[in-house]
Amino acid sequence: MRALVKESSGPGIVLREVPVPRCGPSEVLIRVHHAGVCGTDLHIWEWDTWASNRLKLPVIVGHEFAGEITQVGQEAEAAGLLAVGDLVTAEGHVVCGHCLQCRLGDAHLCLRTQIIGVDRAGAFADYIVMPASNVMKLDGIPTEIGAIMDPMGNAVHTVLEAEVPGSTVLVLGCGPIGCFAVGVARAAGASLVIASDYNPKRLELARAMGAHVVLNPGSDDVVARVRELTHGDGVDLVCEMSGHPSGHAQAFAVARIGGRVNLLGTPNRTTEVDFARDIIFKGLTLYGVTGRKMYRTWHQMQRFLRAGQLDPRPVITHRFHLECIGEAIQVIKDGQAGKVILEVGA
Amino acid sequence: MRALVKESSGPGIVLREVPVPRCGPSEVLIRVHHAGVCGTDLHIWEWDTWASNRLKLPVIVGHEFAGEITQVGQEAEAAGLLAVGDLVTAEGHVVCGHCLQCRLGDAHLCLRTQIIGVDRAGAFADYIVMPASNVMKLDGIPTEIGAIMDPMGNAVHTVLEAEVPGSTVLVLGCGPIGCFAVGVARAAGASLVIASDYNPKRLELARAMGAHVVLNPGSDDVVARVRELTHGDGVDLVCEMSGHPSGHAQAFAVARIGGRVNLLGTPNRTTEVDFARDIIFKGLTLYGVTGRKMYRTWHQMQRFLRAGQLDPRPVITHRFHLECIGEAIQVIKDGQAGKVILEVGA
Amino acid sequence: MRALVKESSGPGIVLREVPVPRCGPSEVLIRVHHAGVCGTDLHIWEWDTWASNRLKLPVIVGHEFAGEITQVGQEAEAAGLLAVGDLVTAEGHVVCGHCLQCRLGDAHLCLRTQIIGVDRAGAFADYIVMPASNVMKLDGIPTEIGAIMDPMGNAVHTVLEAEVPGSTVLVLGCGPIGCFAVGVARAAGASLVIASDYNPKRLELARAMGAHVVLNPGSDDVVARVRELTHGDGVDLVCEMSGHPSGHAQAFAVARIGGRVNLLGTPNRTTEVDFARDIIFKGLTLYGVTGRKMYRTWHQMQRFLRAGQLDPRPVITHRFHLECIGEAIQVIKDGQAGKVILEVGA
Amino acid sequence: MRALVKESSGPGIVLREVPVPRCGPSEVLIRVHHAGVCGTDLHIWEWDTWASNRLKLPVIVGHEFAGEITQVGQEAEAAGLLAVGDLVTAEGHVVCGHCLQCRLGDAHLCLRTQIIGVDRAGAFADYIVMPASNVMKLDGIPTEIGAIMDPMGNAVHTVLEAEVPGSTVLVLGCGPIGCFAVGVARAAGASLVIASDYNPKRLELARAMGAHVVLNPGSDDVVARVRELTHGDGVDLVCEMSGHPSGHAQAFAVARIGGRVNLLGTPNRTTEVDFARDIIFKGLTLYGVTGRKMYRTWHQMQRFLRAGQLDPRPVITHRFHLECIGEAIQVIKDGQAGKVILEVGA
Repeated sequence: MRALVKESSGPGIVLREVPVPRCGPSEVLIRVHHAGVCGTDLHIWEWDTWASNRLKLPVIVGHEFAGEITQVGQEAEAAGLLAVGDLVTAEGHVVCGHCLQCRLGDAHLCLRTQIIGVDRAGAFADYIVMPASNVMKLDGIPTEIGAIMDPMGNAVHTVLEAEVPGSTVLVLGCGPIGCFAVGVARAAGASLVIASDYNPKRLELARAMGAHVVLNPGSDDVVARVRELTHGDGVDLVCEMSGHPSGHAQAFAVARIGGRVNLLGTPNRTTEVDFARDIIFKGLTLYGVTGRKMYRTWHQMQRFLRAGQLDPRPVITHRFHLECIGEAIQVIKDGQAGKVILEVGA
Repeated sequence: MRALVKESSGPGIVLREVPVPRCGPSEVLIRVHHAGVCGTDLHIWEWDTWASNRLKLPVIVGHEFAGEITQVGQEAEAAGLLAVGDLVTAEGHVVCGHCLQCRLGDAHLCLRTQIIGVDRAGAFADYIVMPASNVMKLDGIPTEIGAIMDPMGNAVHTVLEAEVPGSTVLVLGCGPIGCFAVGVARAAGASLVIASDYNPKRLELARAMGAHVVLNPGSDDVVARVRELTHGDGVDLVCEMSGHPSGHAQAFAVARIGGRVNLLGTPNRTTEVDFARDIIFKGLTLYGVTGRKMYRTWHQMQRFLRAGQLDPRPVITHRFHLECIGEAIQVIKDGQAGKVILEVGA
Repeated sequence: MRALVKESSGPGIVLREVPVPRCGPSEVLIRVHHAGVCGTDLHIWEWDTWASNRLKLPVIVGHEFAGEITQVGQEAEAAGLLAVGDLVTAEGHVVCGHCLQCRLGDAHLCLRTQIIGVDRAGAFADYIVMPASNVMKLDGIPTEIGAIMDPMGNAVHTVLEAEVPGSTVLVLGCGPIGCFAVGVARAAGASLVIASDYNPKRLELARAMGAHVVLNPGSDDVVARVRELTHGDGVDLVCEMSGHPSGHAQAFAVARIGGRVNLLGTPNRTTEVDFARDIIFKGLTLYGVTGRKMYRTWHQMQRFLRAGQLDPRPVITHRFHLECIGEAIQVIKDGQAGKVILEVGA
Repeated sequence: MRALVKESSGPGIVLREVPVPRCGPSEVLIRVHHAGVCGTDLHIWEWDTWASNRLKLPVIVGHEFAGEITQVGQEAEAAGLLAVGDLVTAEGHVVCGHCLQCRLGDAHLCLRTQIIGVDRAGAFADYIVMPASNVMKLDGIPTEIGAIMDPMGNAVHTVLEAEVPGSTVLVLGCGPIGCFAVGVARAAGASLVIASDYNPKRLELARAMGAHVVLNPGSDDVVARVRELTHGDGVDLVCEMSGHPSGHAQAFAVARIGGRVNLLGTPNRTTEVDFARDIIFKGLTLYGVTGRKMYRTWHQMQRFLRAGQLDPRPVITHRFHLECIGEAIQVIKDGQAGKVILEVGA
């Protein structure tokens, strides 16, 4: 089968013919239809410090996908819940089930997480093998949307880890996950959703996803504008998706007293925090977001998608074939892309 | 009546004769029996930047107290819930009831909080007037203990803003509130309570309050020891009560993946935070603690005290008469005191 | 001033001239603009067992209202938060602030609740006096809507005491509060809202408030239809607003395993419950709804109303002048009314 | 191997030689050391309606056990988390992982639950096969205690599904699970634990587990006594473990306004409930308890046991060898037993 493989140190990912993976007893084999390209894949392409520390080469890249089941392992078959022909997506974190976090229902924080496309064979390929427990039937959700439920799930996790109905929300950073967060906040009944980014193209996408107000820190005084829009209170919830220390500073400044800052954007350096002024006297709650709650997040997302409350399609700006991974990576680097999809098979 | 008054800029607090305050319709007048001396009073005595920015002089100092009701305002009397002779303590934050935070049940974060002994007449005096709504009957709790329910309440708030039964808890910083936190964590069913401080005297108090293990960062590798004691997991809850950036660093290092850091100690400078490594990838929750939940915290504390589950008396190390406020301040500055009590009347 | 007074045992309420009430130090005097007529007023008119056991006559009736502040008591004025000319509504439960429930933040369950129009002078009058703490500024919400925020708040409380975004909701009983609940569930991001009632007129109102599906137990098999609409799972949340034992039976039958039944409708007889089959083996949660959370419910409702997420006006079907109270009561008895408003002043 | 088998309709369970079960790829084979006899086993022995409707014969009985791993399946071995020689216990509910409830983190309510000893081969045998995911290492907890973590887990689930620290708790019904609940409530920091049962022997066990007060409805007015002990408020939490309609009536009568009733005891007939008076006007929450939260409950229980906060041994009153199952069943029927243990192997 075809697969995009990170073979060696240094930039790039290459298309290779590799064997179709073997399907174990509690696994299923999936024919990939669509896959999503993520910032993580960019790190792997560029072979930055994180990538070179984490990956053991060679590895098939890609962790966002949807497709069709073509084989079901013996144990999975006995369970009778998945069948050849089912259109599915999957949680890409393969977890141990036995560590403290797994036992407490926080499997998204499993000590022994293996991420597909990073720690084990990924989805930029004609086929991928997944544990049956990680697989979710699409039941009518198109595979193109199924392929981006991983990053959309990051947004669902970030937003719903707060009491959203009637709340005021600021999304800082409007990459694809930020744009999804805007849509999720609207779907979940937020009263006011403000989005902020330096990139006008991304602000357009945020508006298309339902932002009531978009702000550009290049021309807007974000803190002043948010205060004004909230009658001086600040917002109930900040979704920090920029990963910049300036985003953190804004987040703490505009979260209301007693409010909440959920942090997803991962900065590559430290931030100076005035804990007394910004966290303690304000009674703030901060929450670090990793992955998707397994599998509460997926369920909530499926509900929103099936009811038509959330439509992520405005965020999809580009589609490429598997062999055009270089172009896909380039449009992401150019900063003009929303979500980029690989059309793998059908 | 006698009152300890901050009259003018510069160090010191003076004993003065002042008129007994007038009791308004919805207020009660209380004869103070015991009062607690707090770090805040030290700031006021020393007239640091915070104090000189916040206080309007002259003001009667002191915000921790208990005593006996000697007069009940007309409206409060009509309500029939408080009577002359009742032994009481009181929440020292007088709140507006109308701001967003008050309306959401977070009156401890009221925008317009007036703190007795800071923003309005305080409790280091023979009498104090309080809104009836702020007053709690002691119903058998001695006034000496009633007088320190304000700082004990900070500890109750900090600890109980987590799921404590069966949990592992690290208390960083063993001043009086840290020591109370140790006792509260034990009362609430924590499985392991570790306390850390540089001051051996404070570690003794922490042990007296029930700490299973005490650590001194001067001689112990706190991070390594906590990991060892928790089989490598780290603790479920860190109560950060030191207010030092080094405390923050330790807190983030030893909180378990998916754990919680509740911050009460107020640092006087900023902390460098590696949000990616310490907050986001660990899925941590941080919570800034201000005051006491009005009045859930008081209720929980009364339950613990009345059932004998929590006994704060080991923390009380010194008692002074009102006129010896200078000595009281000095023992606190010397760092050898636990909780210091003023014996005002009876 | 004019007032609708329950003067004596037996049916009826009479219009009388009575003195304008005196405004105490912590109270405000309000000129009533609009008032809502409630099922409770019907009980009082009819003088049923509940009414004759509860009321001490004479009493001015009416507990749902909005109007304009015309006088502010001395203490309330000192607080500076309410002023003559403010358009306001108010929580009609006047609570003690000192009982266990009040101290725990559950003032809606205060042991000593005094309800206006039931236990103290009500709002079907030109003026009413209210504690300043119970009063909320409308800030742009029309007084006609302000006048029905009390029953709408019952619906907000019922619905939001669950995790609504993405959920499936069944509202059993489509009187005004049931219809409001439909609107609240939609505003809060429910994925599917089903409403059920025998009365076709009420089902029309439920549909106008946003119900995706309406069912009539007279012609529909409610349990079968709900199961079908939820792919066999049942709903996440049942809002029981019928108060009929048959409603309870349906609620327990169609709540999904692990789901929730929030009960507001008050039956006048007992229900047979199969706890093993319906509650325990299903892992259900039941919650009894009284009043509105003070004041979280009001805040959430104001957010929904101001953002335009909730518009209760379709439910208002009739308007009468104060002197036509008899006609207002009659249309409610006829079962053809949604919400009935009294136009009192302006 | 030896196994206690329910072979045919009618009373009794017989000891048989059967083949050691085969260990699948994701399973482990466990040599049973100790097993607990449960009321469920009594139903199976007696072959009541429930048993005859549910079981497909023949089946090996028994669902509470602990023992030693003697074989690890290929996939489970690859995971590297369980090894031959590990002393373990196991959750006896084998769940699908794919239904709505499983996906929401409520696997204890899985639609497709298979219970060992009921729906699949059980633990009253020399060996049992379990999915590796269901298995928990004892890490120092003796197998005798490990064998009763299933029913103790029911108690942990019931009690901890409430805010326990500082609370007042009534346990209605002091069978083994009720007695465990007493111990769990104490471990979790309850301020007052009251236990009620008609059986003086059981009240002795409840007292040995830490009940502050024991009541016998045969001689005590339970409702009056609980009110008195709680200063008229009623208790915060009732754990209903009697399964009798009279227990339900008491539960609703003595739960405080705004309190909680967690129901575990399964009645064999319906209860008349006055929803208006007992649930709605009191603002009660009811919660039906099934099984143990997978696996949060197990973790909390392990913490309590390892820290010595909970010691269930006073409840163990009888020990029998496998072949004496008839005697074990008899002591349970006689109502003089606490927990009955089978000593199977070592």
